[in-house]
Amino acid sequence: MLRKGRFQKSMDSLASWYTSSMADDIRIFYPTVRINIAQTVMLAECGIIAKKDAAAILRSLHGLYKGGISYLELRPELEDIHMAVEEFVTKSTDEHIGGKLHTAKSRNDQVSAAIRLELRKDLLDVGNGLLKLVKTLTQISGKNVETIMPGYTHLQVAEPTTFAHYLSAYCSVFLRDVKRIEQAYEVTNCCPMGACAFAGTSFPLDRAMVAHLLGFRRIIENTMDAVGSRDFIIQTIGTLTIAMINLSRLVEEILLWTSSEFSMIDIPDEFVSTSSIMPQKKNQVVAEMARAKTCRLIGNLAGASSLLKALPQAYNLDFQELTPLLWSSVDETKNTVEVVCNLMEAIKPNKNIMRERAERGFSVATELADTLVREVGLSFREAHLIVGRMVTMAQESAKSASELTSEDLAAASKETIGKKIALEPQDLEAALDIENCVSSRNLPGGPAPKSVKGQIVLFRRKSKQHYKNIRAWKRMIIKSEEKLLKKAKMGF
Amino acid sequence: MLRKGRFQKSMDSLASWYTSSMADDIRIFYPTVRINIAQTVMLAECGIIAKKDAAAILRSLHGLYKGGISYLELRPELEDIHMAVEEFVTKSTDEHIGGKLHTAKSRNDQVSAAIRLELRKDLLDVGNGLLKLVKTLTQISGKNVETIMPGYTHLQVAEPTTFAHYLSAYCSVFLRDVKRIEQAYEVTNCCPMGACAFAGTSFPLDRAMVAHLLGFRRIIENTMDAVGSRDFIIQTIGTLTIAMINLSRLVEEILLWTSSEFSMIDIPDEFVSTSSIMPQKKNQVVAEMARAKTCRLIGNLAGASSLLKALPQAYNLDFQELTPLLWSSVDETKNTVEVVCNLMEAIKPNKNIMRERAERGFSVATELADTLVREVGLSFREAHLIVGRMVTMAQESAKSASELTSEDLAAASKETIGKKIALEPQDLEAALDIENCVSSRNLPGGPAPKSVKGQIVLFRRKSKQHYKNIRAWKRMIIKSEEKLLKKAKMGF
Amino acid sequence: MLRKGRFQKSMDSLASWYTSSMADDIRIFYPTVRINIAQTVMLAECGIIAKKDAAAILRSLHGLYKGGISYLELRPELEDIHMAVEEFVTKSTDEHIGGKLHTAKSRNDQVSAAIRLELRKDLLDVGNGLLKLVKTLTQISGKNVETIMPGYTHLQVAEPTTFAHYLSAYCSVFLRDVKRIEQAYEVTNCCPMGACAFAGTSFPLDRAMVAHLLGFRRIIENTMDAVGSRDFIIQTIGTLTIAMINLSRLVEEILLWTSSEFSMIDIPDEFVSTSSIMPQKKNQVVAEMARAKTCRLIGNLAGASSLLKALPQAYNLDFQELTPLLWSSVDETKNTVEVVCNLMEAIKPNKNIMRERAERGFSVATELADTLVREVGLSFREAHLIVGRMVTMAQESAKSASELTSEDLAAASKETIGKKIALEPQDLEAALDIENCVSSRNLPGGPAPKSVKGQIVLFRRKSKQHYKNIRAWKRMIIKSEEKLLKKAKMGF
Amino acid sequence: MLRKGRFQKSMDSLASWYTSSMADDIRIFYPTVRINIAQTVMLAECGIIAKKDAAAILRSLHGLYKGGISYLELRPELEDIHMAVEEFVTKSTDEHIGGKLHTAKSRNDQVSAAIRLELRKDLLDVGNGLLKLVKTLTQISGKNVETIMPGYTHLQVAEPTTFAHYLSAYCSVFLRDVKRIEQAYEVTNCCPMGACAFAGTSFPLDRAMVAHLLGFRRIIENTMDAVGSRDFIIQTIGTLTIAMINLSRLVEEILLWTSSEFSMIDIPDEFVSTSSIMPQKKNQVVAEMARAKTCRLIGNLAGASSLLKALPQAYNLDFQELTPLLWSSVDETKNTVEVVCNLMEAIKPNKNIMRERAERGFSVATELADTLVREVGLSFREAHLIVGRMVTMAQESAKSASELTSEDLAAASKETIGKKIALEPQDLEAALDIENCVSSRNLPGGPAPKSVKGQIVLFRRKSKQHYKNIRAWKRMIIKSEEKLLKKAKMGF
Repeated sequence: MLRKGRFQKSMDSLASWYTSSMADDIRIFYPTVRINIAQTVMLAECGIIAKKDAAAILRSLHGLYKGGISYLELRPELEDIHMAVEEFVTKSTDEHIGGKLHTAKSRNDQVSAAIRLELRKDLLDVGNGLLKLVKTLTQISGKNVETIMPGYTHLQVAEPTTFAHYLSAYCSVFLRDVKRIEQAYEVTNCCPMGACAFAGTSFPLDRAMVAHLLGFRRIIENTMDAVGSRDFIIQTIGTLTIAMINLSRLVEEILLWTSSEFSMIDIPDEFVSTSSIMPQKKNQVVAEMARAKTCRLIGNLAGASSLLKALPQAYNLDFQELTPLLWSSVDETKNTVEVVCNLMEAIKPNKNIMRERAERGFSVATELADTLVREVGLSFREAHLIVGRMVTMAQESAKSASELTSEDLAAASKETIGKKIALEPQDLEAALDIENCVSSRNLPGGPAPKSVKGQIVLFRRKSKQHYKNIRAWKRMIIKSEEKLLKKAKMGF
Repeated sequence: MLRKGRFQKSMDSLASWYTSSMADDIRIFYPTVRINIAQTVMLAECGIIAKKDAAAILRSLHGLYKGGISYLELRPELEDIHMAVEEFVTKSTDEHIGGKLHTAKSRNDQVSAAIRLELRKDLLDVGNGLLKLVKTLTQISGKNVETIMPGYTHLQVAEPTTFAHYLSAYCSVFLRDVKRIEQAYEVTNCCPMGACAFAGTSFPLDRAMVAHLLGFRRIIENTMDAVGSRDFIIQTIGTLTIAMINLSRLVEEILLWTSSEFSMIDIPDEFVSTSSIMPQKKNQVVAEMARAKTCRLIGNLAGASSLLKALPQAYNLDFQELTPLLWSSVDETKNTVEVVCNLMEAIKPNKNIMRERAERGFSVATELADTLVREVGLSFREAHLIVGRMVTMAQESAKSASELTSEDLAAASKETIGKKIALEPQDLEAALDIENCVSSRNLPGGPAPKSVKGQIVLFRRKSKQHYKNIRAWKRMIIKSEEKLLKKAKMGF
Repeated sequence: MLRKGRFQKSMDSLASWYTSSMADDIRIFYPTVRINIAQTVMLAECGIIAKKDAAAILRSLHGLYKGGISYLELRPELEDIHMAVEEFVTKSTDEHIGGKLHTAKSRNDQVSAAIRLELRKDLLDVGNGLLKLVKTLTQISGKNVETIMPGYTHLQVAEPTTFAHYLSAYCSVFLRDVKRIEQAYEVTNCCPMGACAFAGTSFPLDRAMVAHLLGFRRIIENTMDAVGSRDFIIQTIGTLTIAMINLSRLVEEILLWTSSEFSMIDIPDEFVSTSSIMPQKKNQVVAEMARAKTCRLIGNLAGASSLLKALPQAYNLDFQELTPLLWSSVDETKNTVEVVCNLMEAIKPNKNIMRERAERGFSVATELADTLVREVGLSFREAHLIVGRMVTMAQESAKSASELTSEDLAAASKETIGKKIALEPQDLEAALDIENCVSSRNLPGGPAPKSVKGQIVLFRRKSKQHYKNIRAWKRMIIKSEEKLLKKAKMGF
Repeated sequence: MLRKGRFQKSMDSLASWYTSSMADDIRIFYPTVRINIAQTVMLAECGIIAKKDAAAILRSLHGLYKGGISYLELRPELEDIHMAVEEFVTKSTDEHIGGKLHTAKSRNDQVSAAIRLELRKDLLDVGNGLLKLVKTLTQISGKNVETIMPGYTHLQVAEPTTFAHYLSAYCSVFLRDVKRIEQAYEVTNCCPMGACAFAGTSFPLDRAMVAHLLGFRRIIENTMDAVGSRDFIIQTIGTLTIAMINLSRLVEEILLWTSSEFSMIDIPDEFVSTSSIMPQKKNQVVAEMARAKTCRLIGNLAGASSLLKALPQAYNLDFQELTPLLWSSVDETKNTVEVVCNLMEAIKPNKNIMRERAERGFSVATELADTLVREVGLSFREAHLIVGRMVTMAQESAKSASELTSEDLAAASKETIGKKIALEPQDLEAALDIENCVSSRNLPGGPAPKSVKGQIVLFRRKSKQHYKNIRAWKRMIIKSEEKLLKKAKMGF
């Protein structure tokens, strides 16, 4: 179709298959048709093509939009969806009319616009998915503000906290991910149309009109930038990769905590599988898969970055290889967010075991040291030293934290700082009381029930604002699509 | 220092060297001291430690700040800078007073705060560097709005454009990078202090006061999120990687265009080197190094991503390995932006050669096709077909674009669409005129001088806003530092 | 099928779809059936299942092998191909007989074995593809030992060489790639069967027999290693990535040299495409795509590495996500090697332009300096200094290398080392003669025609050895497959 | 030094600092001097420079070798170590003699040779380190062939195995790493000298002699390949990355098993650290750091791959950025292998807890199913079904595996396959006996004590062969160095 003028021979069939993007282009079928509609409307409005011709083209495009991609012949030798659409329009009108479809545009601006149209929806979907996950986590939090569990650092029991406080940390994290997605959306939602090959055109077109018809926020000014930049793709893959890394940390803990050694979480049968050989197995395959999918994105990001590195302006076919990396990143994230959200809805904390583990492991040691600071006037470092020794001595005699006595304190302090330190019995008891330890940490953002409730309120408020943004964007997209299709249907 | 209570033995020396962050911590020396000052002020204000003790500690910290890092003993067995500072304060006061320094804080919150304090400055520096580069590029653009050069796609001459239009594309790109840097800044500029190990503390501290003293915009609420999240680091490395990838594309073109084959750019001797064996060589080492440094960031990003993947809460020593990747990314970017800015200031376009290359290669073919559409009423696809054939025929008879005649048009149209097409001689001439081709593309963002001047105005306006943001943030940082040091100096 | 005993409920459908490998497993259909055949033969031979039952199972498996994958129901809830095969056998025999198929094996050992069976063939294919490319390059070399062209460093003309010498460098490189592929093959071609879940089995099986029936070189001894290791996959992806990086360097030069600025290479129409808007364009899309595909592998390698990092023994579902990365790497490499081989067969060097470019740019400067060393007794550094100045002076007066005279030498030497140096006219002429410059570099591996002919002989000898290795391995694979199928057909 | 002839101005100081490799070149100081010695010896032997001059140069180089790098001035404007060495020789002889040092060589061949000389030693060191680790693991294995522990899949208790069997898996893995290192060594140990800039030279040099003097196995034939290839670096980083990934899996298990929840491993105080705030903490910092360092290599590999992608021949300064990635990879691996080896020597398995955990979790379920197959004649799938149900029923009534009775079997079989299955009491007991379960798995590579002892013998035999290879290579290196220095000392 394109080659007849310039070349004598058709393309080598392997080379043609190798370089064609047809298989991946299916995803941008609808956006591509919409762009053609918007461009045709603009061409007619600006008097670049005759209204009669425009009307014929629009009828053809509207039919194609309604009929779907099965109307197209996706032969690799057509190279891509853009030529397949042009072929369709040409066949359903005639060579002279259909031949006008590609006026004042190029595949260079068109493909970037099509990716952006598709991607902006995907980004909003991922954003919504994450907000739903935050909602799920805040709901579980709300029921577990008093569910005491051990907090870990270095995979060792560190200090007691609550299940709600732990889940709230992830709410906080995922809300930042939503924010980053909104930022990626704003970079994506700009229109390259009119840039043509990269140098614009001398046809008196109206770039803003096309952008408006497609529901873009604005045009990308510089026409070389418009077709030659793909930082919006790297930013998007990077943003999604961060979200997946954050998710991978959550599911790693699900994996740990459902092990028989930790036993802090139960997962119902619907989310586990067994072994083909070991009949007793209950494998956490959803969490494992989510962890693994994260690496798909890490790889996509590395691949996309190295692809774009040192690529000269304005357009190179290399760009075509970026798009599968983008869609893979989008789809894996969308699916993972959804399935992890379902998984989290289903988990059951084993409250007794959580509490039991929190009580073991001298998790109250810091509180005891702080108590020595407050009540006895030791410096924190002295108190830390004494309590450290108390723990070591207790372990040697197989004592647990709750069995520590004033004698232990006296012995440890004597050994370390050379004098016997005493605490009032009720102070010692309070310091070793795990419930007290948690509830006294009622600073902003802390694990005390009161603090966590405050955080939940905050997450809800933030989520509401994000939902509002996303809804407004979605509405704008849908409206512009409806309006555009109406124009196409009316034959302009 | 920390081990005496808990352990009987000191650490194996290889293990101690292997796990110590001392060498890398030098970079966060000043932030670390400032955090200690702010914490001490807050502890005294809140009545957690005695004002007299606080005063002694502040005097010690102030002396350390003035004296610099050489005051510290950076022995690996101290593990990190945090313990080295505590040791200093303890030695310069006494065990009891110095032992109070670590009250209501942990290295977990402190290291995250210190990295953020350092990084926020670095980000503003990189932002400023990019704005300076944009300024340089707009200045060169301003002088070259009429410097015609070939635009390339697929490394083949595509259409004529101007040097100014080309450089404007990069202005547009780098301004997006500045925007992303501002977004990374906002994620970075939040305060984790008060989170302690991850579960806060029962001391009645004032998190907001510490944040305010350090000039942070706000606290990070959830205390587990505060110490356990590093998405601000991945986001930062990702943001810098995108900026470097964009830079690598610019320097790739410098490399191409300074080759003797392209010869479109000259670089003065100050920026090139020669060969140890080939006396005639003039090597573009700055551009090559900038291209290569991009890969350092791509690697840092992949490494950092895989490090954080599936890492359980709240703190793991793995985090320590993230920081060198961060500083490496920051420094390479900062240096590269600066050196590339200098390089760009020095380049000299060979205007004659640029123009000559633009005239070769039938770069006006699209314009000719568009003219056929406008003047003869052909569809664009028919015009494309005819002009494609004209080019092939011209190449066979070794004709250049400017030598094309009405006869060529007639012959090519006859061959392709079966009828002879004619253009008025002045229309044919105008279509083949490269100056006309450029100036007629005066759409928004296009290469016409008028359009590019409009873009330059836009870049200046945007830059001004970004400069303003950065200046305001810098001022706030400096003010808070001065105020804090004054408090330290006055002994509280 | 597996779940009925252990669980009350079937899996959540989204979770089931998300964790199923069914779609990717199609690729290992035949290997999986072969493993089942080999295992069944062994079970019967060792008396673990009755020969009669074995015969029934083998008939069923043989039918499936002949009928192909369309015989299977690939429902996601079956989880993977392994269970789909078992279901098929069970349905075509009965529950009691089919239920014996999974005796003394697990999906853990079976999936690793299946991947290895498939991969070893793929590796040999890639090896053959690279050898074919080497053959093509040596053939072109053979015709171009006297085709002088400029050699580049830092993208600047450096010294003259020949097209054959240049291509020989890549022959050398790709032969190392073949070597690495052979090494990956040897790691791959080992049998994990008998490892079961990871701890073997108490059934008296014969691991060596299964390995032998499948044509593996040997068993992987330790059973936990057998199912829990995937370094063979990382090694393979790494090996293929290196090959692709090497290819990307070759195609980058094709891209450069087909630009109108370099014009050193022509590509026939079958391998290029044009633009949808710019009718004159001749775009090197094959080379661009090959360059871009390299990044797919770089990404796959980063993804696979981060996936395997810190994964505990012995089997985790994460492994399942490695396989698509493996097949993607294998396929992209296989296709790229083939298409680049075709492209190289089609390229046409522009000998005149190559030579012309070699003559420009003072590429003989080193030879001139060497001549001064030999004939005048200068040190190389003195000679380098003088010639450097000659070049600079010549450029200022727009002289080319061939126009340099004794006076230029005298002037430059006077200016730099303070005395006039003279060369016999014939020595000066010889030093500036590009043909002489190339032919005098007849050291082993050098560009002189004689040297390059020697290299071509070497490449042919090495290739022959590699072909022999690969052929032997292929024959062994085919034979073992035939033998195995015969056993299956005969019902054992 | 190099610039005086060609350029009028010295390099911009920032550009000079930015492009200089001086700081990183320290590592190749000794190799660089050795190459200069070898080259000088060859030049004199071949009559290219006078023996008298050669003797003076050699004396200077020998003095420098003995004196060390402090003899050199490492000013960035010298660009790199190669010019610093030349400057030293020139100053300690005179301009005319010292100026001969760079005859018939270039920095391009020299830097590749220097990296190879340094790297081949490093590779042998890493190889030795891994062999030492294997030795340590086999020693621990030898003492633990009867230490029963749970084997895990999907982080769930799967089947019983022994600590020795588990460690043997890693021996097997690391021996493959040693093999890969030997393969990287063989690619590295080849000599590029004589390639000069990339096109060789017309001086009548002897490439084989230089290679021999430097102890290389052979020359790299094609001179463009010799200076323009870096696949040996990617292969090396890739090989080391795989080794680190394997190590990261081992340390991940150390981390898991030292958690209080698993408690299967104790680490002595020398290898742990505590918290600055939580006095009870015992953090596994060595294992965490080793895990994190793995990501440094993953990043280095991604960075190096993207750097080399699409880089044209023959030499570009980008190569300079590869080397820090290489040394970082080498050093991190070397250190990590050593420190992990020390850590493994120190670990103490808690045999009672290991056994206890193995007994929990129905790890014998597979054995029970196998027993039903053997004793009752069920198909494996039927047996799997029954045992799966037994486990579910037992869990509902809080029974452990050892408490299962014939009644449970009867009930579960009735429910699942519709008929009551019975086992002889002694068969049921044997199936549930964990010791029996392990010892009966005495297939090759299995966990039975006998099998593991066989594996240990195998590892020792393989290790011996590898030690022998490495020793032979090391001896060859040392001998060639001694011989070379002797030549230098004798002034040729």
